[in-house]
Amino acid sequence: MTTATPTDITPDLSLAGAVTIDDIRAASARLEGVAKRTPVLTSRRLDELIGASVFLKCENLQRVGAFKFRGAYNALSLLDDEARHTGVIAYSSGNHAQGVACAAAQLGVPAVIVMPANAPRVKRQATEGYLERAPAGSEVVEYDPKTQVREEIGAQIADKRGLTIIPPYDHPGVIAGQGTAALELHEEIPDLDELHVCCGGGGLLSGSAIATKATQPGCRVIGVEPEAGDDATKSFQTGVLHEVSNPDTIADGARTPRLGRYTFPMVRTHVDEMLSVSDAELARWALFCMERLRIVVEPTGVLGLAGLARRAGGGRAGRRVGVILTGGNLDLSMIPALRTLAAGSPT
Amino acid sequence: MTTATPTDITPDLSLAGAVTIDDIRAASARLEGVAKRTPVLTSRRLDELIGASVFLKCENLQRVGAFKFRGAYNALSLLDDEARHTGVIAYSSGNHAQGVACAAAQLGVPAVIVMPANAPRVKRQATEGYLERAPAGSEVVEYDPKTQVREEIGAQIADKRGLTIIPPYDHPGVIAGQGTAALELHEEIPDLDELHVCCGGGGLLSGSAIATKATQPGCRVIGVEPEAGDDATKSFQTGVLHEVSNPDTIADGARTPRLGRYTFPMVRTHVDEMLSVSDAELARWALFCMERLRIVVEPTGVLGLAGLARRAGGGRAGRRVGVILTGGNLDLSMIPALRTLAAGSPT
Repeated sequence: MTTATPTDITPDLSLAGAVTIDDIRAASARLEGVAKRTPVLTSRRLDELIGASVFLKCENLQRVGAFKFRGAYNALSLLDDEARHTGVIAYSSGNHAQGVACAAAQLGVPAVIVMPANAPRVKRQATEGYLERAPAGSEVVEYDPKTQVREEIGAQIADKRGLTIIPPYDHPGVIAGQGTAALELHEEIPDLDELHVCCGGGGLLSGSAIATKATQPGCRVIGVEPEAGDDATKSFQTGVLHEVSNPDTIADGARTPRLGRYTFPMVRTHVDEMLSVSDAELARWALFCMERLRIVVEPTGVLGLAGLARRAGGGRAGRRVGVILTGGNLDLSMIPALRTLAAGSPT
Repeated sequence: MTTATPTDITPDLSLAGAVTIDDIRAASARLEGVAKRTPVLTSRRLDELIGASVFLKCENLQRVGAFKFRGAYNALSLLDDEARHTGVIAYSSGNHAQGVACAAAQLGVPAVIVMPANAPRVKRQATEGYLERAPAGSEVVEYDPKTQVREEIGAQIADKRGLTIIPPYDHPGVIAGQGTAALELHEEIPDLDELHVCCGGGGLLSGSAIATKATQPGCRVIGVEPEAGDDATKSFQTGVLHEVSNPDTIADGARTPRLGRYTFPMVRTHVDEMLSVSDAELARWALFCMERLRIVVEPTGVLGLAGLARRAGGGRAGRRVGVILTGGNLDLSMIPALRTLAAGSPT
């Protein structure tokens, strides 16, 4: 199923310490009153299905509908005055774009967002909406993901206009910001035995693992990614950085090619386990969230929940399990397709 | 638009005092640790659209997906031992059925639920699921709403089996339970200027108004119902109890024919204002909840929000406005129909 292949990149494992709990706590202070302290939801039916007490940290209810606002706002807050004045650029399949656009509007920083032409409609519209409140010069630049590489387009524009690139995950300020969600969860629900976190480029997973190991060291951290893009699982298991090009998955927020310079060492060092799940499982759990939990979570956003379900059973009774639901920007017209996909999912 | 006509029923206005804040506080104590203390969500985008600070009490995230669990559990808790042992019966278009079924399972009371054949599929399935855990003899009995009157069927079965009827709204124990949601909202968000509450049979609206006037007397209480079933608005405005038969509205939780023996005096006495909204507005706000707030709210559940939007503007800046989102049991296959309906809605 996997198409992940090894790279010849030699990672610098010392970068696993490039973000500390102090960085995450500082980010948390910056985000106070700016980001939402998202609710933690529970469901008896879910507990029965999983056979454990499950606590869902609802980052789908975060500003911009995803945890990405945390990292973007923290990274922009760390810029010096000149960089803030000139502006930033971000390339993203969706939620990072919205996070940067919203943070830019909030902080008064001009922002250029490079988005794929096939980005979900709701994400594109919302990004443009935020940029309307950002300073002049802010705009969405579209690219064709089949023929163009977003990093190259981003670098070209950044170079020409003198903009600071805010990468979607491989950046200490972004990682520290993403770690604040897990920090809040541990504060509100102490003594979790496990925490399940989605993994695309590994920014949220890295931040969550660092926050967890510093505040709740007995809690196992499990990263979950889509089967078609299981590069991080392969990288984690082998210690060799793997990559996958344009993975074919409905988890559009996890179509990243590989872990990064920072996130590979962090995931390899601080995470306890990695696994991958199928699109059918993602579809099933996205529908479960809407129908039984009455919250909208996009397929990428249920990676952690689907991973937990995949691992469920086997003496987990009485365990306390956390899950970060990461994003809620679902194009509702996708629901029939989710239904079809889910029909192929084992229960 | 309205088809509501006056009745010749003479209401007993002294029954406006049949539920007091003490009853609601007692219900709240019973529900502690049983019902969820549902989150209160906010949205900057919504605040901008409305021109006020809006606080959404998310009863769509309550157990069974609706506030109805509160009233049902409270009413069943108030039964004597014999009545509990013999069992209860409820007739409902949906959420009350689930509320009674879930409370019955929780309290070990046998329950018969009389549901219309056209009840939403998700509500029917969920009700049956709860009854599987209730004592033997619990079952769903279906009726045809076009040819049969649910009150008559309910009364027949109740009589034959000696069951206690748990009416969906016109019952002091139910009303006191429903009032606990507003009580929680006022505790968490003090100094609200207005509270918008949906109105079907008036149980939630009565309980909310009593809780509000006792704890936050300066807060205006506004009831909102569907245009096609605006009997309560007409009753409130004229002082003459109006009724409407089988109103044609997507707000399936508010297809009640008239206010009740208790709820008419309570609404007339404790509520400040009543208004009605169109199905197009309900569709538009249900979609807004899913797409922008990332929560699932059924059309009936957004009555309060749609009413607020209808009244919005005109010097409301700086005001603090509460809304109870009442239910989240939406059949997702309805979304295309909501889209079509909403297209006819004024912005």
